Amino acid sequence: MQGLMQDVPLTLDRLFDHAARWHGAREIVSRDADGRVSRTTYAGAHARAKQVSNALRAMGVREGERVATLAWNGARHLEAWYGAIGIGAVLHTLNPRLFPEQIAYIANHAQDRMILADPGCAPLLETLLPQVPSVRDVIFLCDEAGMPRTSFAARDYESWIADQSQQAAWGGFDERLAAGLCYTSGTTGNPKGVLYGHRSNYIHALMTLQVDALALSARDTVLLVVPMYHANAWGVVYSAPCVGAKLVLPGQRLDGASLHELILSEGVTYSAAVPTVWQMILAHLKETKGNLGKLERVTIGGAACPESIIRTLHDEYGVDVIQGWGMTETSPLATVSHPTAEIAALPFDQQVPFKLKQGRLLCNLDLKLTDDEGRRLPHDGKTFGRLKIKGETIASGYFGGEGGDVLDEEGFFDTGDVSTIDARGYMQITDRAKDVIKSGGEWISSIDLENIAVGHPKAHLCAVIGVTHPKWDERPILLVQLKPGESAEKRDFIDFLDGKIAKWWMPDDVVFVDEIPLGATGKIDKKLIRQRMQGYALPFDGTSR
Amino acid sequence: MQGLMQDVPLTLDRLFDHAARWHGAREIVSRDADGRVSRTTYAGAHARAKQVSNALRAMGVREGERVATLAWNGARHLEAWYGAIGIGAVLHTLNPRLFPEQIAYIANHAQDRMILADPGCAPLLETLLPQVPSVRDVIFLCDEAGMPRTSFAARDYESWIADQSQQAAWGGFDERLAAGLCYTSGTTGNPKGVLYGHRSNYIHALMTLQVDALALSARDTVLLVVPMYHANAWGVVYSAPCVGAKLVLPGQRLDGASLHELILSEGVTYSAAVPTVWQMILAHLKETKGNLGKLERVTIGGAACPESIIRTLHDEYGVDVIQGWGMTETSPLATVSHPTAEIAALPFDQQVPFKLKQGRLLCNLDLKLTDDEGRRLPHDGKTFGRLKIKGETIASGYFGGEGGDVLDEEGFFDTGDVSTIDARGYMQITDRAKDVIKSGGEWISSIDLENIAVGHPKAHLCAVIGVTHPKWDERPILLVQLKPGESAEKRDFIDFLDGKIAKWWMPDDVVFVDEIPLGATGKIDKKLIRQRMQGYALPFDGTSR
Repeated sequence: MQGLMQDVPLTLDRLFDHAARWHGAREIVSRDADGRVSRTTYAGAHARAKQVSNALRAMGVREGERVATLAWNGARHLEAWYGAIGIGAVLHTLNPRLFPEQIAYIANHAQDRMILADPGCAPLLETLLPQVPSVRDVIFLCDEAGMPRTSFAARDYESWIADQSQQAAWGGFDERLAAGLCYTSGTTGNPKGVLYGHRSNYIHALMTLQVDALALSARDTVLLVVPMYHANAWGVVYSAPCVGAKLVLPGQRLDGASLHELILSEGVTYSAAVPTVWQMILAHLKETKGNLGKLERVTIGGAACPESIIRTLHDEYGVDVIQGWGMTETSPLATVSHPTAEIAALPFDQQVPFKLKQGRLLCNLDLKLTDDEGRRLPHDGKTFGRLKIKGETIASGYFGGEGGDVLDEEGFFDTGDVSTIDARGYMQITDRAKDVIKSGGEWISSIDLENIAVGHPKAHLCAVIGVTHPKWDERPILLVQLKPGESAEKRDFIDFLDGKIAKWWMPDDVVFVDEIPLGATGKIDKKLIRQRMQGYALPFDGTSR
Repeated sequence: MQGLMQDVPLTLDRLFDHAARWHGAREIVSRDADGRVSRTTYAGAHARAKQVSNALRAMGVREGERVATLAWNGARHLEAWYGAIGIGAVLHTLNPRLFPEQIAYIANHAQDRMILADPGCAPLLETLLPQVPSVRDVIFLCDEAGMPRTSFAARDYESWIADQSQQAAWGGFDERLAAGLCYTSGTTGNPKGVLYGHRSNYIHALMTLQVDALALSARDTVLLVVPMYHANAWGVVYSAPCVGAKLVLPGQRLDGASLHELILSEGVTYSAAVPTVWQMILAHLKETKGNLGKLERVTIGGAACPESIIRTLHDEYGVDVIQGWGMTETSPLATVSHPTAEIAALPFDQQVPFKLKQGRLLCNLDLKLTDDEGRRLPHDGKTFGRLKIKGETIASGYFGGEGGDVLDEEGFFDTGDVSTIDARGYMQITDRAKDVIKSGGEWISSIDLENIAVGHPKAHLCAVIGVTHPKWDERPILLVQLKPGESAEKRDFIDFLDGKIAKWWMPDDVVFVDEIPLGATGKIDKKLIRQRMQGYALPFDGTSR
């Protein structure tokens, strides 16, 4: 027997309709390509999104076709976004910071029909377009005056939509229709596309609006630093309109001074960004002796947040830091480090260890830790395991069938991360599965070792990799890039680590190198390190320890 | 093209699974029938809910069958609830405060298979059971020692579940499966059943957890005064487990002293109740010079909240009052009176007028005001219209097809309320559609007139009804029950109203009566008044005004 409730499909166009009808006067503030700040409202952006829909239909764009954007955060990007998904097209966010050959691979793989791009991306498109024959049209997100000179044909957004009606039918399709496409950065192998559905993104918006998640309200002004091409800006593209939060979209200028100016001038109460953004803002504040105005809280994700950022924002600026964790394949938000009642009652110092973890699972999801054979491991805060996740906001596969069947027999997706979960349910990422060192059946976190070793006063960068060992399968070795002009003995680092780590975690060797290589995103490139260390042999006979 | 996201059905058992796994140690506190306070946890209640599932299966209860409860708020009620819906049975909450013949009608109409009842409901069941042959089993929510004496066979809950396993399969069915049945109080005609689905209640839980709705978190301790038989306690039966809020379930003792004791002893931070509950608590506080401990905020609904409650809770106890509006057919929460950014910036006195409204629409819903012909009316804060609502948490019909097709051609449900919506989106209920007075094409709110007239120092109760008028269709007349010992002229009330209302709202007559009849819920019984006034004729000739 079915319930007797209305059957309204969970399609994302409804969220923007809601914003226009019930929060129509709420502002969307953008820093445009020329640095100037422009303003619209949800009602204004909604009307223009409808014009985009008509312009897309006039071009013959059909349901399921990929409409790509190559753009920073701005109102035109948002309008184009809803204009595309409203008619059932798939909004594909291309990341302008990737190498051109990666973008070309992705756009080809996605078979993008057209690209809406920031004018600043024109040089990139000159390289890109000859390699991506599927792209039939390019629209620059600017007016006629802002058009870049290009060797290829392109139109400006404003004249493209100018003559279009502000009425257009949206929705009316199945809630499982694809809405968005976003490729993972692909640290191993080629990038793979995650194909979000209307239903999955809609449910993600609802679940992330909880107090113990992003906690957005109609009273918030959100500085959206996290790019819209990163999993829908952690879903805020959908959640902010849902509740009528004012949006501040900072464009390409993500330096400390530019962001700080927006925080003060727009009365920002909330922001979402990676830790490095806060490092820049804090450096700027220190230099200018500034303050953070009305800012109350920030969600930090994308990388583990250093303790110093959490403490400085709290102690000096009264801003609460909440870590979040997720990945493109998880829509992305999955865990958030809000305190339990018990932890909230502790003094701040005692809350910090929990703020340093990636947090607790949002309702709607299921999570498990397993060993390599898929057996569940205890939530004791010590045992490392592969982190696997399940729920309607989690990918079931990749676009075009890449990567094959990615779910285990219980329907869980393997995140590729290794983590612990403590008795209170706080999850902490300890390593990537491919970097963790498996020694005698136990796992050693390369990241934990690196974080401790780099505390040595002479160390500039440290990296830990596993090398094969006849008895223990793998043993860790520590690579050290010393600060310029420093010299050290292996013994210095062994002594430094002694007492700070379990005995069996002690690296079997310390190797001094001229350079620890970093990848495009600033993370240590372990793939390259492993290549460079291929001829390396452990200095021991392999029978002891 | 469909998205490539996991397809996990939105079934309500998952919310309780989540609470047990991720908030397992969080308490559920109940005041039992004997007045004592007992404690369990989400993990404990979850294990016992599984036992209930096995006990139900052992009795042969099948998917879709109605398992009724006749009980106050308590942990056993909650366990039985999830035990039933987890296996696909329909949890039907019977309201013990209705007249026995109403309950009998409802239980017969629902064809309830069994009843789980508070021991205090034994006398009621003695009357009820002979009239409801579909009920094959009665379980009392107590242990053996607490069993009441009855002329009918019954079992106690504790021995009923004692031998059952704590493992039971839940879910695995379609998300549109019926989960709950709740009858409207039926002010006109027979009560009608709203049949909630797993999907609709799941989505309702997610949408009501927003900051601008109930805003529950893992740090909250919720005193759930609103009964579980009122639309799933405004959905809190689902939303509290979702986020791991501690639950305090007060049983049958809803007097000011008993509730106040729980607020202090359990560290209650949040409560949901009707205005009269707060009147009792405030009276008790005034008498005892008490305080409200950790209480931060309350949601008040079920009836318009008097300004004095809002001000007293704010000024004297630092508690924020948020009104909510909804009805059984809307799951129930639909609008909530949280401030916009603009209103939040005002001094408290200037916020009060907005707090007195029923609030703004939750995302996920659509709302419209129409005239009797279904034409949309403006949101200007003045124009009255029939309030109609749409969304996946809104009923599409009634159990057994009662009431026929209840949606308009756009799929909206007519709430039977008349309201205004202001330019900021704040909705205010002005009347029931059947009570509003339609005079010359314009609508007059009987409730507004009553609220003003009852301010006359000699008035005890006032009621306004419409009487037919040859020119204006209807005109209002005012019925007054004076305070004991008072006497007054019609003129006194006309003069009192003059200047306080629009000229054309002025009642055409004032009728002094010995008694204004009240219904079972304490509201003025206009149906009875209309019956009594059937022979009444307007004192005017019907051509003027």
